[in-house]
Amino acid sequence: MSTDTQSSTSEKLAVLGCGLIGQSWAALFLSYGHDVSAWDPDPKARAALAAGVQHPLAQLAELGEGAERAGQLTICDTLEEAVAGAVLIQENASENVPLKQKLYASIEALVSPDAMIASSTSSLTWSMLSEGMINKERLLTAHPFNPPHLMPLVELYGPSPAIVDRAAALYGSMGRVCVRLRKDAVGHIANRLSSALWREAVNIVAEGIADVAEVDAALVHGPGLRWSVIGSHMAYHLGGGAGGIGHYLAHLGPSQERRWATLGTPSLTPEVCAQLVAGIQEEAAGRDIPQLEAERDSRLIAMLRARDAFAAP
Amino acid sequence: MSTDTQSSTSEKLAVLGCGLIGQSWAALFLSYGHDVSAWDPDPKARAALAAGVQHPLAQLAELGEGAERAGQLTICDTLEEAVAGAVLIQENASENVPLKQKLYASIEALVSPDAMIASSTSSLTWSMLSEGMINKERLLTAHPFNPPHLMPLVELYGPSPAIVDRAAALYGSMGRVCVRLRKDAVGHIANRLSSALWREAVNIVAEGIADVAEVDAALVHGPGLRWSVIGSHMAYHLGGGAGGIGHYLAHLGPSQERRWATLGTPSLTPEVCAQLVAGIQEEAAGRDIPQLEAERDSRLIAMLRARDAFAAP
Repeated sequence: MSTDTQSSTSEKLAVLGCGLIGQSWAALFLSYGHDVSAWDPDPKARAALAAGVQHPLAQLAELGEGAERAGQLTICDTLEEAVAGAVLIQENASENVPLKQKLYASIEALVSPDAMIASSTSSLTWSMLSEGMINKERLLTAHPFNPPHLMPLVELYGPSPAIVDRAAALYGSMGRVCVRLRKDAVGHIANRLSSALWREAVNIVAEGIADVAEVDAALVHGPGLRWSVIGSHMAYHLGGGAGGIGHYLAHLGPSQERRWATLGTPSLTPEVCAQLVAGIQEEAAGRDIPQLEAERDSRLIAMLRARDAFAAP
Repeated sequence: MSTDTQSSTSEKLAVLGCGLIGQSWAALFLSYGHDVSAWDPDPKARAALAAGVQHPLAQLAELGEGAERAGQLTICDTLEEAVAGAVLIQENASENVPLKQKLYASIEALVSPDAMIASSTSSLTWSMLSEGMINKERLLTAHPFNPPHLMPLVELYGPSPAIVDRAAALYGSMGRVCVRLRKDAVGHIANRLSSALWREAVNIVAEGIADVAEVDAALVHGPGLRWSVIGSHMAYHLGGGAGGIGHYLAHLGPSQERRWATLGTPSLTPEVCAQLVAGIQEEAAGRDIPQLEAERDSRLIAMLRARDAFAAP
């Protein structure tokens, strides 16, 4: 983990792909004073970007983060224009290996040897994406967590520690917390953990132990809240009493393994899917998705502000 | 989920078992103005209780929760004295079925028909514990999440909705968020979710994908933070775009099932345990357990305050 908070000088950063993730990255980069040049193969997506960054920019302003003066957003008609002179190219294309590989080949023909390409991919790995590149080391996976302008986490993997250092310093200077993988893995860390937890959350509903809304409430007011301040491993360390994790593993390791064996392996059958959909409908209680997102974000902003207060020296 | 915030009148509550969980419950009950009568078979534990409640009481005062006037703590020499006149008996004995069953038999001979017995058990179920009771319905499991005076979650299960309602109203009046199970399950909800997540957290370390500290940081700055404001099911609803969870399940359900199949089933071998212990040592970076707990608690208090602000109407 690195939280490099030293202010960096303004640099030109490129954003490729102007969907929600691209908009979010662009807003973050701009708010920290970087000039952003953006491109998307779809002219409609390009045209929507200027409006699309406004909401995340306003949320970042509400958080009180960023530089005194926002950077300049340039929406480019060509890839060439977007990547010219960029120190980092944040790629947010569809999760399609040949498409991304073709894009990287085009970029490599256009940029200086030290320009970094950072893929926001959530489901693909560095090994899949780097195949066929001239300079593989310039590629790294830099997976943000949704919504990226608010969530601090960026998961990094690349084979060159020096290049990962450079990227981590840049993201860190924008309030991101970078976590580094030792080797690439589908789902990086965070989505593997999310997926593992959701499997059991689905199982609890499928088994009739509790409803969707109750499972979500248990998470939010229990482990989720605690995991917003300490990690899972550390929680077991503190659950081990004075002997910590060593004591826990020696005395309760076997019972934890038995617990693991009793966890569910549900299938997303039509019946289970119907239960989940009905359960969410009950939990949402008439709130539509934009309203639920707005509530999530205002709560996240409140939590991030509370963190800033305790993180201060 | 119920959050009954109406102020209740002061009642006599009994706390049986004066270890950490008992101390935490006692402090919570006292801070909300209830008189607490406490007993433990171990005279040393009884003697330590008056001092033991001071730290959680101070933390609750820091949170600004509770009644204007704290209740009265009475440390009793006998079980009979402790349970006499109590509307709720919070049982925090060791996780031992025959011991708890014997305790309930003693309590049933002493109390009025409508006194509730609430077990803090984390690993046992209502079905195991209620066997042999005269009035099974008076027993419920009421599992708090550690540290109980700070964490809002209480997981409730009992066969009588009316009795669970009464308990939920009482806990709810003390700032707890009660979640109800439809049927009893080992690990209730929260510990099942925690266990499922930790299994993958251990797997990521065992597979060499990332170190303990990196896994914990990814959780705290990613999914953990998000789960402190929205649940796992709701996160997939919001991850489904305009079509919500229905769209997500239809389009990404199969890939989620494939992801589940790739998650790990690690064993806590001596090698893996050594990796975890070394990883925690690195993450703790010289901080001992009391220091780590103090940091956890001050961060939790900051997060709880931020929540109170956004929960306000």
